[in-house]
Amino acid sequence: MKRIDWNTLGETERDAALARPAQARAQELRAGVERIIAQVRSKGDAALRELSARYDRCTLQVIEVDEAEFAEAEARLMPELKAAIREAAARIEVFHRAAAPQPVGVDTAEGVRVERMLRPIQRVGLYVPAGSAPLPSTALMLGVPAHIAGCREVVLCSPARADGTCDEAVLFAARVVGVHRVFKLGGAQAIAAMAYGTGSVPRCDKLFGPGNAWVTEAKLQVSADPGGAAIDMPAGPSEVLVIADAQANAAFVAADLLSQAEHGPDSQVILVSPSPALLDKVAAEVDRQCAELPRGAIAEQALAQSRLIEVDSLPQAVEVSNRYAPEHLILQVDAARDLLDGVESAGSVFVGAWTPESVGDYCSGSNHVLPTYGYARSYSGVSVASYQKQITVQELSPAGLRAIGPCTATLAAAEQLEAHRRAVTLRLAALEDRT
Amino acid sequence: MKRIDWNTLGETERDAALARPAQARAQELRAGVERIIAQVRSKGDAALRELSARYDRCTLQVIEVDEAEFAEAEARLMPELKAAIREAAARIEVFHRAAAPQPVGVDTAEGVRVERMLRPIQRVGLYVPAGSAPLPSTALMLGVPAHIAGCREVVLCSPARADGTCDEAVLFAARVVGVHRVFKLGGAQAIAAMAYGTGSVPRCDKLFGPGNAWVTEAKLQVSADPGGAAIDMPAGPSEVLVIADAQANAAFVAADLLSQAEHGPDSQVILVSPSPALLDKVAAEVDRQCAELPRGAIAEQALAQSRLIEVDSLPQAVEVSNRYAPEHLILQVDAARDLLDGVESAGSVFVGAWTPESVGDYCSGSNHVLPTYGYARSYSGVSVASYQKQITVQELSPAGLRAIGPCTATLAAAEQLEAHRRAVTLRLAALEDRT
Repeated sequence: MKRIDWNTLGETERDAALARPAQARAQELRAGVERIIAQVRSKGDAALRELSARYDRCTLQVIEVDEAEFAEAEARLMPELKAAIREAAARIEVFHRAAAPQPVGVDTAEGVRVERMLRPIQRVGLYVPAGSAPLPSTALMLGVPAHIAGCREVVLCSPARADGTCDEAVLFAARVVGVHRVFKLGGAQAIAAMAYGTGSVPRCDKLFGPGNAWVTEAKLQVSADPGGAAIDMPAGPSEVLVIADAQANAAFVAADLLSQAEHGPDSQVILVSPSPALLDKVAAEVDRQCAELPRGAIAEQALAQSRLIEVDSLPQAVEVSNRYAPEHLILQVDAARDLLDGVESAGSVFVGAWTPESVGDYCSGSNHVLPTYGYARSYSGVSVASYQKQITVQELSPAGLRAIGPCTATLAAAEQLEAHRRAVTLRLAALEDRT
Repeated sequence: MKRIDWNTLGETERDAALARPAQARAQELRAGVERIIAQVRSKGDAALRELSARYDRCTLQVIEVDEAEFAEAEARLMPELKAAIREAAARIEVFHRAAAPQPVGVDTAEGVRVERMLRPIQRVGLYVPAGSAPLPSTALMLGVPAHIAGCREVVLCSPARADGTCDEAVLFAARVVGVHRVFKLGGAQAIAAMAYGTGSVPRCDKLFGPGNAWVTEAKLQVSADPGGAAIDMPAGPSEVLVIADAQANAAFVAADLLSQAEHGPDSQVILVSPSPALLDKVAAEVDRQCAELPRGAIAEQALAQSRLIEVDSLPQAVEVSNRYAPEHLILQVDAARDLLDGVESAGSVFVGAWTPESVGDYCSGSNHVLPTYGYARSYSGVSVASYQKQITVQELSPAGLRAIGPCTATLAAAEQLEAHRRAVTLRLAALEDRT
């Protein structure tokens, strides 16, 4: 882990210290994804079978998971895991319901009623990766808010295994949260199928979920096409920034850093502390714990690019964090809650020694689909609102039109939009005639 | 206006009847905008001066509006217009404050506190076009929610006139709603300047506002670049769909159709009614009123592609509207409010005879920056939430970790993420040691 003393750096060096690895959209990747999308659009299900054979190395008898496969998955799953999936779904539901947008209504003048009503996005497509391991938790994180929002058709794609079946835990989780249809598709072809529709897969209005570089590029391409689909947010590698003070438990801090580092070799891990002693202790603990991990080799690669940053105070640590805008921010300091007011940009924050990041990945109730790669400066994590449209409604009584009609007419005239003005004055004249 | 009988059409013909004019991203436009962005990134303010001279035909002495120009604008503006701008800003503020997201906090288990806190996006860039006429109302619609959200730096760009000054009403509106800095820039170069920053223009995290094809393409390009800026939503030409019954006032309906048609030759105007007689009356009224309009020639071009659609009932009219997903939906029917429940996709809805669309453009209080071109299926109009991030926060007590730790550990094990599991079990073991 690279050790950095923040206060010895100039502005350019500070930028470099917090720089993320470049995510260039390689021309090759771009063109490859364009080809896959074109193939799915022109050949539909036939293309999906062909691409699954090539990339997932499986022969798809049926593209959609049927009742028998759902039942078999449920029967084969350990009771303890089924209970954990149900428990996690319930906690996620509690928080997401509490945070769901509410309808609003207000009179902005006498006789001028203005409201906001909420409507689900009709058809949504969820992507659940199954690269190094299947991720039932992602099915929960994407499916629960879709269910609360009331989306009419919730579609989920997850890659099949070599034997043509889907992971049992992903299937069970999908059913628990009310996903309507599951397709055994992965990669850019899954995104293309949900964005444009095929014989089997319905066309979706908005696509959600994490994925590898191919999935990410495909989401970017379909979202730039007016005939494609909207997406939840742009994506990048997962990352964590931990702020710890001298009193922090070095073993806890190291465990949190490693639980981020094990995600992949491109994961970003940063520790910021005003205590040089704590930085030393954590570095040693990381080495010790990493040696024991099954995914230790992956974690080591991520750690090679990670940073230990020494600052002169906790407020300065928060400044560094805001500048980086981490996906996950862990506050392992005394009176951790006092730092919250200063947090400006982050995806999700974990407060205090007893709140490891992994509880947020599974079952604290918050969502784990979060903005990475600095996108936390302008994007939020997935929530019920991500699955809804907020439609404004206005209704004027004759008194309401008398109240705000003149203001409208004056502004329309200033903007040289005469028909806008007349739509008001014509009605005001009709009201005059009635009296 | 083209007359269509909905129930004589097959599905393909129905799609065609509601098709929007193709918005192909012409290769030429794409390349032209790429060049402008590259120029602004490499040469900064010098490029801005050069491009303003070429495209806006003005010599910019200073790029930023200074105090003297603001004061002069205010002094020159008619008192009636200033009052209208203030009145509109106040009504927009009332509704947007009422609809602003609120912090949330809930316990998802004993000792597991989960919250959502709100933070403004730090620096936002607003674009106010001034093509055929300057649009002070757009400065209000973009500036009011930015102010309510508490954005630290609100930057606004609007093209200069040939004499190098900005429109007085736009400047006055910007000041009324608390915009911090105004730059005399238009087109793709304004978007590039706000996305990447120059010597004069600060780099912004998110860009908002309508614009011509160059502005739209530039927003698309900077939002696809991780080093660029987020944007409010994709854009297309403005549009309205009116549902009217036999009792509707044909003159009112025609006036509303025309107030959309006068926006530009590519505006979309659709009237849906179960009454053939009403369709006839409105067609005649449109011709009569259009002849009197200063922008009648523009409106006529838009009307040439517009449609009068006959349906067999009001519920079918709502179905047609949902399929089209209009930016503006006007309900000029008896008991108009009864139709609202069926409305699934629209940007903003105008209920009843006394609610012309133009009140929403200026001062009912709702926002006029809305999803067009079918984007209302998955996007919402601009609101306070557009200027904020929603950050989740979780804090566990030891009891909280005991409550949800085992669920986390089970799921982490199922996903083969051992470091995630250990971050929990390590802490649970420490708790055991304490007791």
